[in-house]
Amino acid sequence: MVEHFNKKIALVVEYVGRRYYGFQWQTGLPTIQAELERSIKNLTGEEKRVIAASRTDTGVHSRGQVVSFWTSSNLSTHTIVKALNHYLPDDIVIKAACVIGKDFNIRRDALSREYEYKILNSPIRSPLLDGFVYMVTNKLNINIMKKACKLLKGEHDFASFTNTIYGIGNTVRRVYEAKINDGKDSIVTFNIIANSFLPHQVRNTIGLLTRVGLGRVGLEEFRRIMEAKTMGLAGPTAPACGLCLIRINYPRDLEKKYANLFN
Amino acid sequence: MVEHFNKKIALVVEYVGRRYYGFQWQTGLPTIQAELERSIKNLTGEEKRVIAASRTDTGVHSRGQVVSFWTSSNLSTHTIVKALNHYLPDDIVIKAACVIGKDFNIRRDALSREYEYKILNSPIRSPLLDGFVYMVTNKLNINIMKKACKLLKGEHDFASFTNTIYGIGNTVRRVYEAKINDGKDSIVTFNIIANSFLPHQVRNTIGLLTRVGLGRVGLEEFRRIMEAKTMGLAGPTAPACGLCLIRINYPRDLEKKYANLFN
Repeated sequence: MVEHFNKKIALVVEYVGRRYYGFQWQTGLPTIQAELERSIKNLTGEEKRVIAASRTDTGVHSRGQVVSFWTSSNLSTHTIVKALNHYLPDDIVIKAACVIGKDFNIRRDALSREYEYKILNSPIRSPLLDGFVYMVTNKLNINIMKKACKLLKGEHDFASFTNTIYGIGNTVRRVYEAKINDGKDSIVTFNIIANSFLPHQVRNTIGLLTRVGLGRVGLEEFRRIMEAKTMGLAGPTAPACGLCLIRINYPRDLEKKYANLFN
Repeated sequence: MVEHFNKKIALVVEYVGRRYYGFQWQTGLPTIQAELERSIKNLTGEEKRVIAASRTDTGVHSRGQVVSFWTSSNLSTHTIVKALNHYLPDDIVIKAACVIGKDFNIRRDALSREYEYKILNSPIRSPLLDGFVYMVTNKLNINIMKKACKLLKGEHDFASFTNTIYGIGNTVRRVYEAKINDGKDSIVTFNIIANSFLPHQVRNTIGLLTRVGLGRVGLEEFRRIMEAKTMGLAGPTAPACGLCLIRINYPRDLEKKYANLFN
């Protein structure tokens, strides 16, 4: 009964998405999942599926992706972190690992996901931020964008904010937080927390918010686009490089129980 | 009398230092100065020397380097910025340009230079910060480092903090500000402002401060090393990738006069 010794391991993963075709496994293409599974096989000899709490798209970065996999290995989590980081390429790193309960489903038990999107609002590019910002040349009106952010909050049908509704079913999502901030060095930061996101939802939200900030779409039209619930009406889809998965939030008792994952 | 039409132009330059052997021209090696002079030649046809307010070392980054050059070109500064950025590689950018008075010497008239150094204080590397931080695995004692920073302030002979005193003469420098801060995501940031710096002074300061933070050097020994005025006694020289030139400060009337350079 090998099954008896099976353990479920959760990992927190940081990565630069630039070189990858997103999280999910794709035949013959470099993906985060493929790299994680290859490294786990290198370490344990086992071919295991890794699941992610929030699948990121091609080119999207992560500071706090949570993944899990089963293993019959008896290595300590300390060793697992060190060894996987040895096998992983430089642009992916395991920040923490923990043995979790068999009934803890890192995807279904997640209460919410937080993403951050960075805009460089300047006519001059920034080598220091290259690959981590979306450059918008014309001056954005941040105050009007803040008003649009308020309209995003709450439970809405976000069908207008996705490019594919096929196979998704319910397009209703609950946005807990949506805020935009004007920072130093011409960096505008957008943070959004929702129970979950439709494909391309954050990037299409940025596309629409940018049109609002440039005065091309008013708040009334913003509201109409939301209410139209028509696939692809928001957007355009902003570039992936500005987007970063920041954190997966779980119920307090789980975050407390697995404190070294979620500190 | 072509001389009559000669203008002096100042530029603010951002760059990622990774690919370069520092600011200063070196035969056959890629440097920031060489790229700037090549771009100016592409634009104006003139072979001009570019001087920098603060020469950065191999691998050091800049967010606010100030340089100047003479030209008889009549192009507007707007065109100069756009055109030089067209000719420059992706990792160097001109952020602003201004015609300055012939008596404004961007090096000698600078009151002070500000540098920032970033340490990733974590046993786990960070792909998102790769190339912009110095990784220190063991936990640093920030409070004791703050006390050491206080000792750096004021006018001192910093001979212990340089690796070459040859050709430098006076090794006395005035440090206006030296502070260390414990930020989020395990990032420790050191900011230092001085009238000017000796070669490797900031990186040797970080080397010594790190030894203090790890408990290997006490405050008394820190003071003794400063007072010994012996070349190379501080250090070790911390990696260049963590260092960034932030800003050159000029007298208020000049900063006001050339506000689009120094906003």
